[in-house]
Amino acid sequence: MSNNTYAIIGSGALGVFYGAKLQKVGLEVHFLLHSDYQHVQENGLIIKSKDGDFNLPQVNAYNNTNKMPKCDVILIALKTTENHLLAELLPPLLKENTVVLLLQNGLGAEPEIAKIVGEDRVIGGVCHIGSNKVSFGYINHTGGGLIIIGRYAINHQIAEITNKMREITQYFESTGVPVNLTEDLLLERWKKLVWNIPYNSLSVILDARTNEMMGDANTRNLVTEIMQEVLEGAKSCQRQIPDSHIQKMLDHTDKLQPYLTSMKIDYERRQPLEIEGIIGNPLRMASKAGMKLPKIEMLYQQLKFLDARNRHKEEGRGKREEGRKI
Amino acid sequence: MSNNTYAIIGSGALGVFYGAKLQKVGLEVHFLLHSDYQHVQENGLIIKSKDGDFNLPQVNAYNNTNKMPKCDVILIALKTTENHLLAELLPPLLKENTVVLLLQNGLGAEPEIAKIVGEDRVIGGVCHIGSNKVSFGYINHTGGGLIIIGRYAINHQIAEITNKMREITQYFESTGVPVNLTEDLLLERWKKLVWNIPYNSLSVILDARTNEMMGDANTRNLVTEIMQEVLEGAKSCQRQIPDSHIQKMLDHTDKLQPYLTSMKIDYERRQPLEIEGIIGNPLRMASKAGMKLPKIEMLYQQLKFLDARNRHKEEGRGKREEGRKI
Repeated sequence: MSNNTYAIIGSGALGVFYGAKLQKVGLEVHFLLHSDYQHVQENGLIIKSKDGDFNLPQVNAYNNTNKMPKCDVILIALKTTENHLLAELLPPLLKENTVVLLLQNGLGAEPEIAKIVGEDRVIGGVCHIGSNKVSFGYINHTGGGLIIIGRYAINHQIAEITNKMREITQYFESTGVPVNLTEDLLLERWKKLVWNIPYNSLSVILDARTNEMMGDANTRNLVTEIMQEVLEGAKSCQRQIPDSHIQKMLDHTDKLQPYLTSMKIDYERRQPLEIEGIIGNPLRMASKAGMKLPKIEMLYQQLKFLDARNRHKEEGRGKREEGRKI
Repeated sequence: MSNNTYAIIGSGALGVFYGAKLQKVGLEVHFLLHSDYQHVQENGLIIKSKDGDFNLPQVNAYNNTNKMPKCDVILIALKTTENHLLAELLPPLLKENTVVLLLQNGLGAEPEIAKIVGEDRVIGGVCHIGSNKVSFGYINHTGGGLIIIGRYAINHQIAEITNKMREITQYFESTGVPVNLTEDLLLERWKKLVWNIPYNSLSVILDARTNEMMGDANTRNLVTEIMQEVLEGAKSCQRQIPDSHIQKMLDHTDKLQPYLTSMKIDYERRQPLEIEGIIGNPLRMASKAGMKLPKIEMLYQQLKFLDARNRHKEEGRGKREEGRKI
């Protein structure tokens, strides 16, 4: 196989980690960066990883996709809250056979990207990885790495695995990143939501780490009930997730170190929360199929309120502190 | 009519306000106080009221019901979280015709009090009043005052109005406090919950004042949906509250000054929240009748978590602050 070239869109922990792994095995990788741009151009990347630390003193860093070469594979690892930028970012990178691999949580992004690049180019990836950005160009990979990859087909139909997907898999696996291929991307997205919806939402609303939610009988029940609603949502889209998946997620979370979710970290940093991708779009998809998910709807309403206050009203924080003193 | 004697159990804003009004018109009133006892015994009460300020330099103050005389009417104005004390507090105050008037929000207290004093002595009052305690023996009455009074009958059956209730009404009205009499106490309790459940709960969970909840489309919808669930709960107990009551409550709240609910004030003071009376008991009553109220159930679960952390884990606050810095 000829060596693919990769564009990495998004300078968060996830995109930089996978991009660095691909560069490390000798592939040509181009990074679109934002706040990290200057620093990474001058200093490269530092990857601290449970699978072995490494540095890349020099990387191809850009602050504009117009300056980047067209690539074979575009990895999108932006926050979903930045997806509105893609209509401008993607076109300069496309050549005839370019495919887009969307490494995001939540639902609803693939149809939007298909409108920009064409449906036949869109592949989705569900990442099971723990990683965070310590500082500019410095990523800490704490666990996992598996990507489940499936092709997007209109209306989330079952989509057969292509040779291109097998090729991408080989590249990733050559870096040590395990890949599973699936014909049912939507099922995998819903399965990931079984974890993401309750823990991300409640971590922000209750100002709580995973161990606190699991250690209290009321929130533990609430987490479980929200997971059951996610299964109902999936079912409304003709996706069956077995009940045993809930217990698996609970057991998995019990074993985690006290954990601050990505949504909670965004909240603390006063960055936009991924509410629409992770909660709003699944809700709307279920609602279209006639399924009410009342507790998830309430999470949505609570988060929208908190996010708006957190970002738009700087005086909100003052109020909060003041309120505490009464 | 012979002059009734009154015992006031609970030194919060509500009990002290009504007790002071009764004493002011010349009735014999005995106050059971807790933290205020020493101060009130020495200095009496100061009532700042929109209906006219007044002082009572001397009141009958007690710190133990064994030292109090038996009274004709016992006003219970404790927080519902202290109702477990009543089995000990009430018996010394009872004479043959004593009645107990319970001035609390929420559901579930009357049957418990009936076990202590006998079913035929229990009257419930639903108070529509704004008042708060500024400091020891100093009450600020900001608005309202109406009490809706109904007799408790086993299983919350419709209960006819008695002469005793009319007598109490006359005494209250002689102080300027309006009273409505009802044969359906449970209906009035559910109607009050239409306001109390959404605003009290969300003020704590979202750290928000009423105007913030009303000013955001998502929380405004959420408040409305929770109110609809309260109507469903009432309906499961064969009580019909018209839909128009929801709009009335929303309009009323829109007109309020930015308002910190009583549950939010308790939370800030790290005092126990009235979760069972205001949310848990209504939920269980509806559940017994086969009615699920998922959003109210979620409020309950979230509040139980927050209340437990707030009171039992002093390190909780440290963690919260620390979390914010990430």
